[in-house]
Amino acid sequence: MIEPAMTLANRLRAGETIVTAWSTLPGSAMPQELVRAGYQAVTLDMQHGGHDYASVRDAIPAILLAGGHPVARVPVGDFATASRLLDAGAEAIIAPMIGSVADAREFVSYIKFPPAGTRSWGPARAMELHGVAESQAYLMSADAETIGFGMIETRPALEAVDEIVAVDGLDGVFVGPADLSIALSDGARCEPGGREVQDAARRIARAARDAGKLAGIYCNTLDDAVAAREMGFTFISWTSDKAIIRSGVSATLAPFLEAAANKDR
Amino acid sequence: MIEPAMTLANRLRAGETIVTAWSTLPGSAMPQELVRAGYQAVTLDMQHGGHDYASVRDAIPAILLAGGHPVARVPVGDFATASRLLDAGAEAIIAPMIGSVADAREFVSYIKFPPAGTRSWGPARAMELHGVAESQAYLMSADAETIGFGMIETRPALEAVDEIVAVDGLDGVFVGPADLSIALSDGARCEPGGREVQDAARRIARAARDAGKLAGIYCNTLDDAVAAREMGFTFISWTSDKAIIRSGVSATLAPFLEAAANKDR
Amino acid sequence: MIEPAMTLANRLRAGETIVTAWSTLPGSAMPQELVRAGYQAVTLDMQHGGHDYASVRDAIPAILLAGGHPVARVPVGDFATASRLLDAGAEAIIAPMIGSVADAREFVSYIKFPPAGTRSWGPARAMELHGVAESQAYLMSADAETIGFGMIETRPALEAVDEIVAVDGLDGVFVGPADLSIALSDGARCEPGGREVQDAARRIARAARDAGKLAGIYCNTLDDAVAAREMGFTFISWTSDKAIIRSGVSATLAPFLEAAANKDR
Amino acid sequence: MIEPAMTLANRLRAGETIVTAWSTLPGSAMPQELVRAGYQAVTLDMQHGGHDYASVRDAIPAILLAGGHPVARVPVGDFATASRLLDAGAEAIIAPMIGSVADAREFVSYIKFPPAGTRSWGPARAMELHGVAESQAYLMSADAETIGFGMIETRPALEAVDEIVAVDGLDGVFVGPADLSIALSDGARCEPGGREVQDAARRIARAARDAGKLAGIYCNTLDDAVAAREMGFTFISWTSDKAIIRSGVSATLAPFLEAAANKDR
Amino acid sequence: MIEPAMTLANRLRAGETIVTAWSTLPGSAMPQELVRAGYQAVTLDMQHGGHDYASVRDAIPAILLAGGHPVARVPVGDFATASRLLDAGAEAIIAPMIGSVADAREFVSYIKFPPAGTRSWGPARAMELHGVAESQAYLMSADAETIGFGMIETRPALEAVDEIVAVDGLDGVFVGPADLSIALSDGARCEPGGREVQDAARRIARAARDAGKLAGIYCNTLDDAVAAREMGFTFISWTSDKAIIRSGVSATLAPFLEAAANKDR
Amino acid sequence: MIEPAMTLANRLRAGETIVTAWSTLPGSAMPQELVRAGYQAVTLDMQHGGHDYASVRDAIPAILLAGGHPVARVPVGDFATASRLLDAGAEAIIAPMIGSVADAREFVSYIKFPPAGTRSWGPARAMELHGVAESQAYLMSADAETIGFGMIETRPALEAVDEIVAVDGLDGVFVGPADLSIALSDGARCEPGGREVQDAARRIARAARDAGKLAGIYCNTLDDAVAAREMGFTFISWTSDKAIIRSGVSATLAPFLEAAANKDR
Ligand SMILES: [Mg+2]
Ligand SMILES: [Mg+2]
Ligand SMILES: [Mg+2]
Ligand SMILES: [Mg+2]
Ligand SMILES: [Mg+2]
Ligand SMILES: [Mg+2]
Repeated sequence: MIEPAMTLANRLRAGETIVTAWSTLPGSAMPQELVRAGYQAVTLDMQHGGHDYASVRDAIPAILLAGGHPVARVPVGDFATASRLLDAGAEAIIAPMIGSVADAREFVSYIKFPPAGTRSWGPARAMELHGVAESQAYLMSADAETIGFGMIETRPALEAVDEIVAVDGLDGVFVGPADLSIALSDGARCEPGGREVQDAARRIARAARDAGKLAGIYCNTLDDAVAAREMGFTFISWTSDKAIIRSGVSATLAPFLEAAANKDR
Repeated sequence: MIEPAMTLANRLRAGETIVTAWSTLPGSAMPQELVRAGYQAVTLDMQHGGHDYASVRDAIPAILLAGGHPVARVPVGDFATASRLLDAGAEAIIAPMIGSVADAREFVSYIKFPPAGTRSWGPARAMELHGVAESQAYLMSADAETIGFGMIETRPALEAVDEIVAVDGLDGVFVGPADLSIALSDGARCEPGGREVQDAARRIARAARDAGKLAGIYCNTLDDAVAAREMGFTFISWTSDKAIIRSGVSATLAPFLEAAANKDR
Repeated sequence: MIEPAMTLANRLRAGETIVTAWSTLPGSAMPQELVRAGYQAVTLDMQHGGHDYASVRDAIPAILLAGGHPVARVPVGDFATASRLLDAGAEAIIAPMIGSVADAREFVSYIKFPPAGTRSWGPARAMELHGVAESQAYLMSADAETIGFGMIETRPALEAVDEIVAVDGLDGVFVGPADLSIALSDGARCEPGGREVQDAARRIARAARDAGKLAGIYCNTLDDAVAAREMGFTFISWTSDKAIIRSGVSATLAPFLEAAANKDR
Repeated sequence: MIEPAMTLANRLRAGETIVTAWSTLPGSAMPQELVRAGYQAVTLDMQHGGHDYASVRDAIPAILLAGGHPVARVPVGDFATASRLLDAGAEAIIAPMIGSVADAREFVSYIKFPPAGTRSWGPARAMELHGVAESQAYLMSADAETIGFGMIETRPALEAVDEIVAVDGLDGVFVGPADLSIALSDGARCEPGGREVQDAARRIARAARDAGKLAGIYCNTLDDAVAAREMGFTFISWTSDKAIIRSGVSATLAPFLEAAANKDR
Repeated sequence: MIEPAMTLANRLRAGETIVTAWSTLPGSAMPQELVRAGYQAVTLDMQHGGHDYASVRDAIPAILLAGGHPVARVPVGDFATASRLLDAGAEAIIAPMIGSVADAREFVSYIKFPPAGTRSWGPARAMELHGVAESQAYLMSADAETIGFGMIETRPALEAVDEIVAVDGLDGVFVGPADLSIALSDGARCEPGGREVQDAARRIARAARDAGKLAGIYCNTLDDAVAAREMGFTFISWTSDKAIIRSGVSATLAPFLEAAANKDR
Repeated sequence: MIEPAMTLANRLRAGETIVTAWSTLPGSAMPQELVRAGYQAVTLDMQHGGHDYASVRDAIPAILLAGGHPVARVPVGDFATASRLLDAGAEAIIAPMIGSVADAREFVSYIKFPPAGTRSWGPARAMELHGVAESQAYLMSADAETIGFGMIETRPALEAVDEIVAVDGLDGVFVGPADLSIALSDGARCEPGGREVQDAARRIARAARDAGKLAGIYCNTLDDAVAAREMGFTFISWTSDKAIIRSGVSATLAPFLEAAANKDR
């Protein structure tokens, strides 16, 4: 059995807030360093980031070795890859652009074993990585101990959010504020921090809570992240690897350049 | 023209039993060694194993260099990859979770040229690897000299097996006993060697034979493999790379440790 | 904003003829060298060539560094990958086997932002590579400055070509002569240079021009390429990396062998 | 401080016999599986195996994740790589073809910090992997908790073995029976199991023991391995990945083929 | 000719202070991002970092694409690799553990063409990357437009620093404070920021300036970096990729956790 | 035993002229295509090209699969890599910058087994690739069936050429005209086709022939290649992958552009 105390699923279901770094640069070295630097989870992005199946497959053990929870976002509609990444040891899968109950059900069918879904059997690697010795134990625990988040980031999804969160086997929803902003403005604006998006996020979090499901969100600013937590999101992406690098450079290189400039005056 | 005497298709159609190793560890070195150690074929698993397109693309010539037949299993529903792997020189493709006649027909459409299907033209690499110099020769022989297996591993598939094996262009079926076990027990058990699964396997083999199609199966124990052969399966997966490593370690390390323990007494 | 003067879209829309090399060998070194040797564009082929997402992701900056336009062909129906490659900086995507208006619309939905489509937001890498600093600028310009070509290479597509070229958001069509030849002969022949295919190509070019859309084509001989230009194609693939290597070897090794043979006489 | 109870050095110095698998196939998947299948240590061979720096760098964490001890053999005379691999987290380095006291001293200079040698400081990765938080702690413990084996496999080395084992900072010697056989026969024979080699091995083990140093050896047969243990070798390579694969195939495929042949009679 | 205005050599020789990031994580994505985030140069570390020849070869164009200067540190004594990396387009090479005039001369022999050294001809890739079209132009400019730094980080080197900086063809020296600290304390301490090391650094900078050579240094703290600039160092490594990640995580994740903790009170 | 009729050594020793392509772009796809396009041998360049050990290790079987002879040039003085590449299946090694009898002898010591040298035993991969089943057979044949070329490309080497070619175990010499040109002009010119270099080449070829050794050369023009053959060189590098690409583009793209330009007039 996947050791419940250790799983991301268990921690989130116990109400813990988990902050994830968002990994877009291919490779497994930086994901591991993000854990060593303090992150509990790293989300490997195959949709908009540079990751592919192979780099996610290799980053998962790198994250686990440092004690972090490996999560992956798959490309739009690529549910077969969701299955493969659970087999590869991911603890949670984020599926983008879930626009309807039908989408949610199809996603579930790929990530949950019968009778909840039709996930196909082949978790040998996940069992190794998570210390599960017996097939039967994995079969009995995997649906509960791995998580599928469906992304709510379009107008139809927002309208159907109560039905989507009610889909059996869908563990949670995850808000994509940039796409939501574009969708709600009919392509006019990318303002993930705008009022309309924030209101939608709040509504999504409430829908999830009411349905007993998890709620996650991608945040673009510290304020958004703090606000998200207050809205009830407990799986919070703050922030991306590129933003962390920029912040790190600001915190180290900038003071040197400033000191140098002062001397030169 | 693909040299018939050399192809996996030709050997299977002549009634020969072919045993394949099942490769789940990414990389092309071990697949090649499996051929050098005696296997006639190696199946590179993209569904539950660690392979992706690139590792399969590279393992195919590695297997051919050692004189083996390269086979690949694609992810669920990923028929575009089936086409790409035929272009890359695979001799057979195994498609998991074929649940209906419609699934089988869609799979066929990707792996057979018109008029049987709509496989798109672009076999330059396969022609190089198999020594086919002329496009016309490849076009005329490819459908016959490459094989598509549809996996029968769900309840609906089992019920429709007679119709599925009858689908034109589908070369054979391949039994997935673990998924079948889970499906037949409605998610209660993973017992690929159980009676119910064995009965289903026998029925599938018979359906294939009656339709003049090939029958393959994944085996988890030596007994299952021997039994499968008696049931009429001629493309037999026995066993996986991980199982081979464990057996190899048992056969080499264990006697040393035992000898050492005896001395210490 | 993507700098219009520099984009492939801008050049093609201005009526310029662009010749692309066709890259089938995985890796980014040869694509870059093809630009250094004179090509304006290189098309990285994931359908029939050896490229996968990772090799395309890495070849795009390699092509840009040398001043070329990176283009990619995705596998059949793999529109999610089309989105990912735009995010990775590709300037144009070629989608094979577009057989109907519905196919074309689905393709468009993945490569154009709302309201034209539902492309999901995440172009950080493309913005870096193309020097676009502001999200809003990218959102406003991306649909115009990146190109989606749908391939016309089946009988139904040919019959529906006027409707397909009229699909909003589809920037152009691209002719696949080999598949067309096979389709038009019902699987009997692969003669991409044959009369029937040439007539079809001419008809497709005319349909595109009448609809104000771009027209591209894959050419197998110099004569075909010259003829294609006269038919009105402005995005012309001539020729593949393998053909370039063979031509290069003919131009260098052959004269040496000939000179050597003459001496030996 | 590197946790002594966990290190290979500590276990060997406590008199424990450690059996290592010998990894020659590039990649990190099989090394990890060898640990999961029972090995305590895996030696990654850069001299005669297919490993290079990058594959060793990546296999080290893969071995550690499964609870094994990572060891590496460097190419002849490539002591700079020995340093790099200690920085990368290897617990022991085997240096081939140590032919003299001077060779041994040069090797030591690269793997031990001042004053024992001149190993250059930069163990950030090793500290991460082995859980050492403070630089000072690593500096104080690293020389003791990592191991350098010099290979004795030439005639001059054999003659100087007593002086070589006495070199300060050299932790042990490792016998290469194949090279020894060729050397002792002046190139006439490769008989690693022959009497002459076995006598030499015994003499080397004794010299090491008398000097308080560790003794390791590469074994080609079970009998050689058992004999080596009796001679006093405690770091025993038995057996290579290729031999394990062959044994594994013999143990799994062969019985099937035999059963099949019996049926056919 | 390598365009002088653009080269790192030219900028340093004009007295400009250049700050380099220090790259230890293999891969080319983060090095490129470090330039996009503000660094003028990135040093790819093959001695203690995870880079090997291939990752440096690939990171060089990645750095150039973003407008940065690629620098590499080679393993101890691996001067052949120094030549290869100049051929691959590196603008400067840092050679560790230069302990004597003889070491410095040997290093020079690999990085400067005749008559200054015996660097072997083969800069085709560097010419491509730096826009040098003619061989003769490269031959005439390369020695001046690429830089070799010898590291001063041992007691003998410190004692011979005046002679080392005087070696013809050596462009500069680079201080390794950690190794210097260990060396000067005879292995007792790793205190790169200690007084003794700082005094030695000052002395080295002065020796370089007096000889008309460049001076670089690795800095572990902002104070050290500021102090180094005042001592006259103009090529300053501040700071490593891992430190940048940690700083970035501190600047982004920590405030969120703090805000969350405050709310919880 | 390595099958003599098939080896490069055997063909060269029988007096056959072998033309090799020179591979500088990393990867194994283009080396294989060069063989398919007509080359008998491909030389993988680790000195000035982008190859490293791993890319050579992987390109060797790719070349063999297409029926070509794999050759490698190692970095300056990196004889340990020469051994590793023979183990990896290379049929010939070219060592650059052999400047003296001592250099030649050291090179020989790494590539020939006792008593000719001290090459260390470990050819399992080479045996697989070349079909040698028995260790004893490989030991008895390897020195004869693999080739080491020492490059003559400096003034001291040219002066000592008669002594160098006389070194036992050195199979041949290989002329580097670019370095020779720079050396003979004391760094003033890179004119590999100049008179002085041609005279030196002729002298080197004669010295080799008189000593019963092989002679190879790198050629930059067709005329040089034809002349080299007349001088007695039988292992001729003509031409590099980049030059082949440029020639191929000239032969395919240029005529199209010309035809297009004519139409436009
Ligand atoms: Mg989104
Ligand atoms: Mg299955
Ligand atoms: Mg097509
Ligand atoms: Mg040895
Ligand atoms: Mg140092
Ligand atoms: Mg040279």
